[in-house]
Amino acid sequence: MDRLINFSAGPAMLPTEILAQAQLELLDWQGRGYSILEANHRGSEFGELFARIKQDFRRIAAIPDDYQVLFLLAPARAHFAAIPLNLSQPEQTADYLVMGLWSQLAAVEAKKYLSVQCADSAQTWRVNPASAYAYITDNETVQGIQLHDVPDTQVPLVCDMTSSLLTRPIDVRRYGMFFAGVQKNIAPVGLSLVIIREDLLDRARTVTPSVLDYGLQAQHGSLLNTNNNFSIYMTGLMLEWIDDQGGLDVLWVRNQEKAQRLYAFIDAHDYYTNHVPAPLRSCLNVVFDLNTPQHEAFLVEARAAGMIGLNGHRSVGGMRVSLYNAVSLTHVDALIAFMKDFAERRG
Amino acid sequence: MDRLINFSAGPAMLPTEILAQAQLELLDWQGRGYSILEANHRGSEFGELFARIKQDFRRIAAIPDDYQVLFLLAPARAHFAAIPLNLSQPEQTADYLVMGLWSQLAAVEAKKYLSVQCADSAQTWRVNPASAYAYITDNETVQGIQLHDVPDTQVPLVCDMTSSLLTRPIDVRRYGMFFAGVQKNIAPVGLSLVIIREDLLDRARTVTPSVLDYGLQAQHGSLLNTNNNFSIYMTGLMLEWIDDQGGLDVLWVRNQEKAQRLYAFIDAHDYYTNHVPAPLRSCLNVVFDLNTPQHEAFLVEARAAGMIGLNGHRSVGGMRVSLYNAVSLTHVDALIAFMKDFAERRG
Repeated sequence: MDRLINFSAGPAMLPTEILAQAQLELLDWQGRGYSILEANHRGSEFGELFARIKQDFRRIAAIPDDYQVLFLLAPARAHFAAIPLNLSQPEQTADYLVMGLWSQLAAVEAKKYLSVQCADSAQTWRVNPASAYAYITDNETVQGIQLHDVPDTQVPLVCDMTSSLLTRPIDVRRYGMFFAGVQKNIAPVGLSLVIIREDLLDRARTVTPSVLDYGLQAQHGSLLNTNNNFSIYMTGLMLEWIDDQGGLDVLWVRNQEKAQRLYAFIDAHDYYTNHVPAPLRSCLNVVFDLNTPQHEAFLVEARAAGMIGLNGHRSVGGMRVSLYNAVSLTHVDALIAFMKDFAERRG
Repeated sequence: MDRLINFSAGPAMLPTEILAQAQLELLDWQGRGYSILEANHRGSEFGELFARIKQDFRRIAAIPDDYQVLFLLAPARAHFAAIPLNLSQPEQTADYLVMGLWSQLAAVEAKKYLSVQCADSAQTWRVNPASAYAYITDNETVQGIQLHDVPDTQVPLVCDMTSSLLTRPIDVRRYGMFFAGVQKNIAPVGLSLVIIREDLLDRARTVTPSVLDYGLQAQHGSLLNTNNNFSIYMTGLMLEWIDDQGGLDVLWVRNQEKAQRLYAFIDAHDYYTNHVPAPLRSCLNVVFDLNTPQHEAFLVEARAAGMIGLNGHRSVGGMRVSLYNAVSLTHVDALIAFMKDFAERRG
C-alpha cells in the first residue's frame, strides 16, 4: 500500500528515498557481493564507510577537533547510568534540570551513583559550581516542551539530545557532552551517539562497564565491541540526505515552520488545545487535547486518512505529533486538513 | 554481483531467503504502509510480532517456563559486566573457566566487580561451592575450540553462547543463565539474548545500570528502553528458517557434518594444519595455518573464487572458517575445492 505519514515519537518515519536506497542494495552492498548486514565491522570496506560517516557527521554538526564522537550499540537510556559513571565520583554532586519525563528518569538513575540536586525551571536554576556536571534534556518528547536557550553553567553541561540532534545547528562549545539515540531524526533504532570534550574522557569510575566507558570506546574508535553496521550505514544515508536538503540551517528553518503551522492551527481552533506556555513549546513534539472524548475516533479516522503515530505518550494521554526530520511541510498540511475536517464533523 | 560465500566470524552471513524477505517488505511491512524500521516498539502491531517471536524462540530452543527470555539492545560484551552486577555481591566470588579470548575478557571485566578464580581446563575445574556463579564460554571463536560437554557445577552456571546459540539443541536446565549476541547464527548485529532462570532475577546490585538490570527488563518485557525492532524482526525470520530446516536437531547434524568435512580435509593435507586437540575442536570456527607464508595470496585468491571472511582473528593470525547456520554443506565443499587447488599450485 502507499506509505503512511508516520508522526510517531520514535522509532520514527525515515525519508522514503533512504529506505529505497537501503532496499536496493540490501542483498548486495554497492556491488560487493554481500549485504551491509553481513559486513565485518573490522574489515577495510566497512572501515572506509565508517570513517567517512564520522567525518560527515563532524562536518554537518560542526564538531570541534577537541570533541570525540562515539557511535555506541546502546540505547540512549544506557547513558542515564553511564554519565554519572563516566563523569563523576560517588562523593560528588550533579545538578539536573527536570522539566519532563526523560530528565526525571535520568535524575532518578543518576541518584544510584551520586548526590543529585534537581530544579524544575531554567530561569531559577542555580548550578552548584562544585558539581561534577549539570544535566538537561533539551526537548521533552512526552510533555512537548523544548529548551530554546542553552543555560549557562560553570560546570560541564551534559544534554540529552535524543529528539533534537541533527534537527538544527548546535553550538557545541556550550556543552561538555551531548548524546542521542538515533531513532528519531537520524536512523533506525540500534545506536546512540555521544559527543564529548576530550578532557572529560579521563574520569570514568573503575566499575563502569567497559562497553559504556567513553574513554575506552574513544581509544577503540567505537569498536571495542561489534558495532551496529546497519544503523551506522543508515546514519550515513541520512547525513547525505541532510546535505541534499541544504544542511542543518535549512532543516531548522523548515522544522520551525512545520511546528508554527500546527500551533497556529491549534490556537485558532477551540476544538484543540495545547497547554504548553509559548516560550517552552517544542518544535519537535506538538501535544494537544480534543475538547470532546473522541480520542479513539480521532486515531482511527487519522489512520484511514493515511496518518499514524498520533497517540500521546501513555503517561499523559492526549495526542502527540512528532515533527522529526523526515516529516515534511506537506505532511503537516495534510494533518491540519484532517484535523480541521474532524473538528467540523465531530466538534 | 553474485553473493559471495561469507565465512566471517560475525557479523556473519545470513540466509539469502531471509535477506530477500526483508528486502521485499523494507518499505512496506506486510502491507501496513510503513517499514519495520519505523514500527513503534510499543504499538500493537509490533507487539504481536514480538510476542510470536518470543514464543517461537521458546519452542525452538525448548526453554522451560521458569526461565525468562530477554531481548536486549546491548552488545554481548555488555553482559561481561552485567553478569556480576546482576548475579553477585561485591564480597562474593565467581569461578571462570578461561579457555580462550572471550572467557578471558569476561573474567577481566568481572574482576572489576568481585573476586574471580580462573581455571584453564574443564577436566580439572573445581568450582567453589560458595561462589555466586560459575562461568564458561562454550565456543571460543578466536582459538577455534568448543566445550562439547557441559561441566557440572553446584552453583548457577552462566554460559556465553554468542557463537553457538541456535546451532544445536540446548539442555537448558543445566544452566542458570546463558546469553548471546545475535550476529553470528541468528540475525544482524544489534541485539543480545539473555535466558535466565527466574530465581536469579532478584539479586541485582543497586548500581546496575537499569537497561542491564535483568529483573527490571523482565518486568518490562524487554521494553524498558526502545528496542531494536529490526534485529527482533530478523530474528523472527531466522526462527521461521530454522523451522523450515527441521529444527535444531537437524541443524546440529548439518553443522557437525560441515566441520567434519573440513577437519578431515585439513588433516589429510600437509599444507594445512589445525593445532587444536581433537576433543576440543570447534564445529563453528575452524582455524588453520598454511605451511608457507602465503597468507595474503590465500585471501586474495579465495575472494576471487567467491569466498570472504577467512582471515584469522588479529590476535592469533592464520585462517579461520566460521561455519555458522547460514553456511551450507555446498559452501564448505566449495571452500575445500579451493583449498585443494591452492595447495596444489602454491604448496
